[in-house]
Amino acid sequence: MNVYVAGTGMTKFGKHAESSIELSVEAAAKAMEDAGIAPEEIEELYVGNFAQNMFEGQAHPGPALYGSLGLKNNIKATHVESACASGGFALHEAFRAIKGGFAKTVMVVGVEKMTSRPTPEVTGILATAGDAFYEVPCGITFPGYFALMASYYLKNIGGTRDDLAEIAIKNHHHASKNPYAQFRKEITKDVYYGSPIIAEPLCLYDCSPISDGAAAMILTSEKKDVELASCEAAVSRMALAERREDISWLESAEIAGKRAYMVAGVTPEDIDVAEVHDCFTIAEVQNIEALGFYKHGEGIKAAKEKETYYDGKKPVNTDGGLKAKGHPVGATGVSMAIEVVKQIHNEAYNQVKGAEVGLISNMGGSGPSCVAGILRRS
Amino acid sequence: MNVYVAGTGMTKFGKHAESSIELSVEAAAKAMEDAGIAPEEIEELYVGNFAQNMFEGQAHPGPALYGSLGLKNNIKATHVESACASGGFALHEAFRAIKGGFAKTVMVVGVEKMTSRPTPEVTGILATAGDAFYEVPCGITFPGYFALMASYYLKNIGGTRDDLAEIAIKNHHHASKNPYAQFRKEITKDVYYGSPIIAEPLCLYDCSPISDGAAAMILTSEKKDVELASCEAAVSRMALAERREDISWLESAEIAGKRAYMVAGVTPEDIDVAEVHDCFTIAEVQNIEALGFYKHGEGIKAAKEKETYYDGKKPVNTDGGLKAKGHPVGATGVSMAIEVVKQIHNEAYNQVKGAEVGLISNMGGSGPSCVAGILRRS
Repeated sequence: MNVYVAGTGMTKFGKHAESSIELSVEAAAKAMEDAGIAPEEIEELYVGNFAQNMFEGQAHPGPALYGSLGLKNNIKATHVESACASGGFALHEAFRAIKGGFAKTVMVVGVEKMTSRPTPEVTGILATAGDAFYEVPCGITFPGYFALMASYYLKNIGGTRDDLAEIAIKNHHHASKNPYAQFRKEITKDVYYGSPIIAEPLCLYDCSPISDGAAAMILTSEKKDVELASCEAAVSRMALAERREDISWLESAEIAGKRAYMVAGVTPEDIDVAEVHDCFTIAEVQNIEALGFYKHGEGIKAAKEKETYYDGKKPVNTDGGLKAKGHPVGATGVSMAIEVVKQIHNEAYNQVKGAEVGLISNMGGSGPSCVAGILRRS
Repeated sequence: MNVYVAGTGMTKFGKHAESSIELSVEAAAKAMEDAGIAPEEIEELYVGNFAQNMFEGQAHPGPALYGSLGLKNNIKATHVESACASGGFALHEAFRAIKGGFAKTVMVVGVEKMTSRPTPEVTGILATAGDAFYEVPCGITFPGYFALMASYYLKNIGGTRDDLAEIAIKNHHHASKNPYAQFRKEITKDVYYGSPIIAEPLCLYDCSPISDGAAAMILTSEKKDVELASCEAAVSRMALAERREDISWLESAEIAGKRAYMVAGVTPEDIDVAEVHDCFTIAEVQNIEALGFYKHGEGIKAAKEKETYYDGKKPVNTDGGLKAKGHPVGATGVSMAIEVVKQIHNEAYNQVKGAEVGLISNMGGSGPSCVAGILRRS
């Protein structure tokens, strides 16, 4: 059974007064309208959410959401969590629900409402996605995790802070055209270097923001113009301390990507546009290397050389990426897939000419879980 | 593709010094030994867990667990949450992974480590599985949810506290023989009535305890002597206020049960032994009625009339149930399936003579999510 995209919808990412339920309703209603599908046609719901129990006091989002979304009573609704890859993992299970012949029309909603908590508390909540038994008790949180990987990369593999700045500049440039983005503004190198260091060598503009938002996608077995050709997952070691010698290499993204290429029958060269998990600028570099777009050590120059701009030879994060579009954790993976659908529909805000095949790489935590998916014109 | 049970393992339920990871390792190692399967043969891992992020500071259990379990690097590991039905929903997704032909050998680990937090805090964490937007802010927690349903039932449907006492007495009787149970002791009516009221009409002995524990099951497409013939899910309204007139009726259990019967091609009459979600004594009544074993209003007399004892005509919770075996939330659904496997293997501590077909009904929160599964001798 092939899997197609029937419709998509999302909220603007940023700071919202609304609850996770209300944000989900907005995204889902748009997706149903886009698909021309009534609520009662949806057979199953998968919710991608990281920690609404801590952000809002609401666990159990399957039953909490389905009624508000207007879906039919007694459908199946499942909550899938894999830190910042929660949306991607929900998409993966929904993909299988159709691929395996269990359902014909499945909705995926990714959502996170984060800004209701003060920033230090959010940082603490996010840190539960790290290694809670050994590393987090030593004081590490996510900027620290990625600072360690960035330091390793800059010291041993190559590149400079200036190369990271170029990634932030590119993604802000892309987001400036995206009405759904949290930061619709260009930045300059002066702005980048003028911002405070968060965790050496990463400064404020290397980091994705705290965001609220929801993104919804309806998958169907009925032929549509965009196919979700694969959606595969992999995990790798949680603790940085347990990784192989090069802590900057994202094994889960490499393996999930290889699985996604294999199932879809494509190669990295076939990818016209990619949405990859740039929770920090360095993570974009790590992803585009793990996914086979660049050799290890060469990905860091891609933005500086304008190759990953929407009009470059390997467009990456054309919606502004997590960096500038925003990163409402559970919604992120689904929003990546939505951008690729827009590109294939020739409706993107930074349109890649002739985009036919796109990839998403949605990563959890410091990289130990990843979902990679391929969407293409069918 | 049929789905079979290759092996099972669990920890004792109760208070443990070990972390969720260590408990999981114990259960998983036993399951692999029981199955005669090496860690490298496991292709995928599904983790059922409710709130380890709040209990222990560890979200993201997919990657957190797989390495410690000794599983092969870069497998797929997914965390599934649906409150107290998290284990059942994990089993459901694992069932589909094999049924849909995506994998041949899948491990399910259900786990919860709860006793590390003080009881009032645990009660608050559990309440995130309720309706966090309307009902929980009014002060309701789970004893309150089930007290409202019990009050409604006793007033409008039938029965007395004495009937509830009989359920507690039966489940403690069953648990007294189960070395994995948290409470291996019989209770009397004097003990029941002498215990404090927790939420009128429910007293201490109507409530399942706070527990630590893990349960693991390995599913396979290779023929074994026990088949997981179906594993189906349904959701219903979260808020009690939104339910149909009779708030004591568990719609999700009714529908999940009907789906499970249909997929397996059996009827309620075919079930030789059932493990149902008795987080409170009243919930056992609600389940056995929703599942079609008893008419509404008649389930409450079943324990008093000795029908639901292991040697009665409809054995229910032969391992002691959540009430006396214990209720480490994420582990519960998997442990139910393990008891049914033991019954079919003729190895149960309270053996039902000639048990061939068994059912599990694992419910989330106040009942808005449920997984029902049928296991049978193949």
